[in-house]
Amino acid sequence: MKDKLRQLLEACMENGSEADLSALKFLLEGVHEKIDQNKNTFIGPLLHMERKIDEDSCEITVPLHPVLHNDLQIIHGGITATLLDTAMGSIAHFHLPEGFGAVTNQLNIHYIAPGIGDAIRCRAEIIHKGTKTIVVAGEAYRSDGRKIAYATATFFIIEI
Amino acid sequence: MKDKLRQLLEACMENGSEADLSALKFLLEGVHEKIDQNKNTFIGPLLHMERKIDEDSCEITVPLHPVLHNDLQIIHGGITATLLDTAMGSIAHFHLPEGFGAVTNQLNIHYIAPGIGDAIRCRAEIIHKGTKTIVVAGEAYRSDGRKIAYATATFFIIEI
Amino acid sequence: MKDKLRQLLEACMENGSEADLSALKFLLEGVHEKIDQNKNTFIGPLLHMERKIDEDSCEITVPLHPVLHNDLQIIHGGITATLLDTAMGSIAHFHLPEGFGAVTNQLNIHYIAPGIGDAIRCRAEIIHKGTKTIVVAGEAYRSDGRKIAYATATFFIIEI
Amino acid sequence: MKDKLRQLLEACMENGSEADLSALKFLLEGVHEKIDQNKNTFIGPLLHMERKIDEDSCEITVPLHPVLHNDLQIIHGGITATLLDTAMGSIAHFHLPEGFGAVTNQLNIHYIAPGIGDAIRCRAEIIHKGTKTIVVAGEAYRSDGRKIAYATATFFIIEI
Repeated sequence: MKDKLRQLLEACMENGSEADLSALKFLLEGVHEKIDQNKNTFIGPLLHMERKIDEDSCEITVPLHPVLHNDLQIIHGGITATLLDTAMGSIAHFHLPEGFGAVTNQLNIHYIAPGIGDAIRCRAEIIHKGTKTIVVAGEAYRSDGRKIAYATATFFIIEI
Repeated sequence: MKDKLRQLLEACMENGSEADLSALKFLLEGVHEKIDQNKNTFIGPLLHMERKIDEDSCEITVPLHPVLHNDLQIIHGGITATLLDTAMGSIAHFHLPEGFGAVTNQLNIHYIAPGIGDAIRCRAEIIHKGTKTIVVAGEAYRSDGRKIAYATATFFIIEI
Repeated sequence: MKDKLRQLLEACMENGSEADLSALKFLLEGVHEKIDQNKNTFIGPLLHMERKIDEDSCEITVPLHPVLHNDLQIIHGGITATLLDTAMGSIAHFHLPEGFGAVTNQLNIHYIAPGIGDAIRCRAEIIHKGTKTIVVAGEAYRSDGRKIAYATATFFIIEI
Repeated sequence: MKDKLRQLLEACMENGSEADLSALKFLLEGVHEKIDQNKNTFIGPLLHMERKIDEDSCEITVPLHPVLHNDLQIIHGGITATLLDTAMGSIAHFHLPEGFGAVTNQLNIHYIAPGIGDAIRCRAEIIHKGTKTIVVAGEAYRSDGRKIAYATATFFIIEI
């Protein structure tokens, strides 16, 4: 397996452009962080998420990189959705007792401006905490301060 | 740069579990396909998307891999969102003349069942094509045939 | 009370325009139908809803009248929402056993074209029936056949 | 026409229950207010809407009445949608120059608690004002202070 991985990397480097090498670096650093910090998902470290959370809100910041682009060379709407869903799910989970988790039941996103620049920052806060569901709102901003998306989601509370 | 990448890979392999090595393989194969087939985004090949498209619908199929999991060890809602947004955006774009693109303005997803199993298949079709916007619906299924999500989106038509 | 109602009607008729009298007729006929047919809500007969329902779908048709207009003299988006929610809730309820009801948890509507003309027809069908929720889609058409809205909703199943 | 209206009212009163007479009063008072205050829609006065608006927000309050109930004897989800859409559309319109209007393009509502009690109060504020669209959020509360719904909407700016 390890030799296979080395061969894959060499094959990528042989024909890859500078942008491709930069993407490799972005991804390998993500996996390295996942291993090094013993994280329990790949998506967080692969996107280089930094998370701040307290009772009031969860903030997730990620650097932007062409590896996250869509055909139009702006951040893929699905990546923004991933960041918002993660921030909103994190704050929902934060408000649950031990042994319970929050799964997304419905996600609604208004895309407002193109996601460009150095970084995206998402901020989520609770709209309503019930016994079966939690409703959360989230906003995404780019580094020049412009709002790029506004989201709401319903999470189901489940035993885990 | 290349030596830096080799060192990163070695560092990952030194301490990584089997699951981590499998993730590295999944990602490196994605980048390799991007380079080899000269694709214009990373997200498609990184997720190993296979796409079928004609006038009626766009279908995107991806294999599932733990690299796409959330904390609960099922496919991250943001990944499902990425697949649905890509399939819906592709069918919207397919119906536009040369020189025009479709950007997501609003995305709404109902999550129905956990994304588990071997693969996810998304299917998108046009609900309404106007002069300024296109409304699209998309469904996601897992390999046992169970529907896991239903989505709708409004795309803005822009000149590119 | 009855004299009060007679006085109110006379006051309306004294200063009302032809459009106002037509609105009064529309509303009084609605209340009359509610009483005459012993219906259990006012909203259905007030909007003059006609409903066809079977296992596959629920169709609700209403005549358009200026009493339903917004400031721009087209059908108020909230009325379209009421029709879609009613049609979607009806088909959800149709699929439940005796003693259970369906309450709207999330409603999402894409408005596509202005609601004008003689009548609006809504058609709803089940997207997914689970043990706790039902996901439904609905479409609204005007009498010239043009689609004016596309909706989805999540209903919670409750004991009643 | 006037005799026809009088006959309709008598027919309603002859067989109507106390609840039906109360509904007639609610509706006739609405039409009377529409005529008396020369309002340009019926929906506002029929629902007995009271509106406060300034740059920051629009608040709409309505009394609850069984005429607004659904089959489960709580406020119909479509009525809540009508109030939220009206409050959100009003604040959007408030921020537009003379000669422009705001039409709902997409409406998303999370229903949180049953709409019961004496009155419903909706409050809407701007999330984003662009050149082509305005994104607005709205909340609905009942008189005991409990939040019953959270909504977002995209409005298109049109020339009127």
